[in-house]
Amino acid sequence: MRVFSWAARVYWEDTDGGGIVYYANYLRFLERARTEWLRSLGHSQQELAQMPGILFAVAALSVEYRRPARLDDELIITCEPRNERATVMRFLQHIYRGSAPGAADDLLVEADVRVVCVDKRTLKPKRLPDFLVDALEL
Amino acid sequence: MRVFSWAARVYWEDTDGGGIVYYANYLRFLERARTEWLRSLGHSQQELAQMPGILFAVAALSVEYRRPARLDDELIITCEPRNERATVMRFLQHIYRGSAPGAADDLLVEADVRVVCVDKRTLKPKRLPDFLVDALEL
Amino acid sequence: MRVFSWAARVYWEDTDGGGIVYYANYLRFLERARTEWLRSLGHSQQELAQMPGILFAVAALSVEYRRPARLDDELIITCEPRNERATVMRFLQHIYRGSAPGAADDLLVEADVRVVCVDKRTLKPKRLPDFLVDALEL
Amino acid sequence: MRVFSWAARVYWEDTDGGGIVYYANYLRFLERARTEWLRSLGHSQQELAQMPGILFAVAALSVEYRRPARLDDELIITCEPRNERATVMRFLQHIYRGSAPGAADDLLVEADVRVVCVDKRTLKPKRLPDFLVDALEL
Repeated sequence: MRVFSWAARVYWEDTDGGGIVYYANYLRFLERARTEWLRSLGHSQQELAQMPGILFAVAALSVEYRRPARLDDELIITCEPRNERATVMRFLQHIYRGSAPGAADDLLVEADVRVVCVDKRTLKPKRLPDFLVDALEL
Repeated sequence: MRVFSWAARVYWEDTDGGGIVYYANYLRFLERARTEWLRSLGHSQQELAQMPGILFAVAALSVEYRRPARLDDELIITCEPRNERATVMRFLQHIYRGSAPGAADDLLVEADVRVVCVDKRTLKPKRLPDFLVDALEL
Repeated sequence: MRVFSWAARVYWEDTDGGGIVYYANYLRFLERARTEWLRSLGHSQQELAQMPGILFAVAALSVEYRRPARLDDELIITCEPRNERATVMRFLQHIYRGSAPGAADDLLVEADVRVVCVDKRTLKPKRLPDFLVDALEL
Repeated sequence: MRVFSWAARVYWEDTDGGGIVYYANYLRFLERARTEWLRSLGHSQQELAQMPGILFAVAALSVEYRRPARLDDELIITCEPRNERATVMRFLQHIYRGSAPGAADDLLVEADVRVVCVDKRTLKPKRLPDFLVDALEL
């Protein structure tokens, strides 16, 4: 399955008093890439949010922080959907520094994120909409 | 009219790479004090958000940043409602460092915030609910 | 003086429970545009942060919120430097929705932001570096 | 080892357009509890940040999101240090809704967070300061 990638810049808002990106804020970069992956399929977050009867929520994630990102860094965030259950979107994601993702030195963050589709009323897992099942090649 | 005050601590999440609180984040502290002022009247933000037919939005604000707040600082945020139009909640707010608000040295931020009540459909200004008119002594 | 403009997208991270961009978060968009204006002059925030003996801080701002931005909106943020004192960078800034800034309907936010240059030790105002004085045509 | 716990309130700033706490923002709550655990030992984050020659960084985390937190919720965040290597602080953390942590219904988030101590220059792992080794009963 192809790897989608998206660029973002580090601004003051992203850093903390340690001079590096605050650990929670990498999760914002990760979501921007997932959102843009969705948009590359012709769909928006707003559209997912308004689907009748279902909602999407991050169910679990794990993150390894390898090197810190700093003010003014340009980041490349990747998003690689993985086969999982028909109720879950699973993404392997990486954040690299600079325009040359792939260089071992530039790998800042590795993440594994599971987004689950649930019934709005019962909160029980529900099958993903077809276009997502197709996109994820489930 | 009495001045309401609320304490908050500065954490890593609030600071930026300059080692001080990021300029947008003082607005979060200001809103916490307005929310707790509301709670001190026996009402919640959730309750305001669910009022049928109306919604509340910050319409304007001005902020003067006098001294920076730093990691681990304890802040006192004040909230002083002011007479204004019957469609607007206006608050003068101050942020002090430490437990002795009033000392000139400790004044970090002064703000003037206007929250407007509008019709959900037309977005035209609407009269505030009675309990807020009473609280604001309009 | 020319108006600089910069585009940004609204993601989940920017919104609040009201379904619109949280009022403090517009200040992050405003700063991104100021940072990119600086970069367009060939300078970075990191460079300003490392200038010996001086530092830059937002001293005051006023914001008028005209219309809310929503999830998935594309924003255009402008940044128009203004003549002011030799120790202050003043910016008039606007946030528009969509790719056609100028349409009255699309004006979401107006802001006036003052960034002051101060002596690192005494915190007294200091003259801006020459390249900024030039850029601001003071 | 005893479990430390800390209370926090959910404000507008923490929520997103889905009406629940934004997934990255739970990490801010988690850090507040770790910071207050540190303070309960008589030490501050500022003090850690200024230790000569070493720095602390989150190296890895995993989070399971069980139920969403909403506007106005009061949260209890726990922080349970665990034995690990002498260069790592590991914390098991839980976020509960309300004042009765322990009720299965109220468990919102489970997290496992590793903070590593490294040499400031070489970024190689370094032994934690003695007071932390003692606190962690390593």
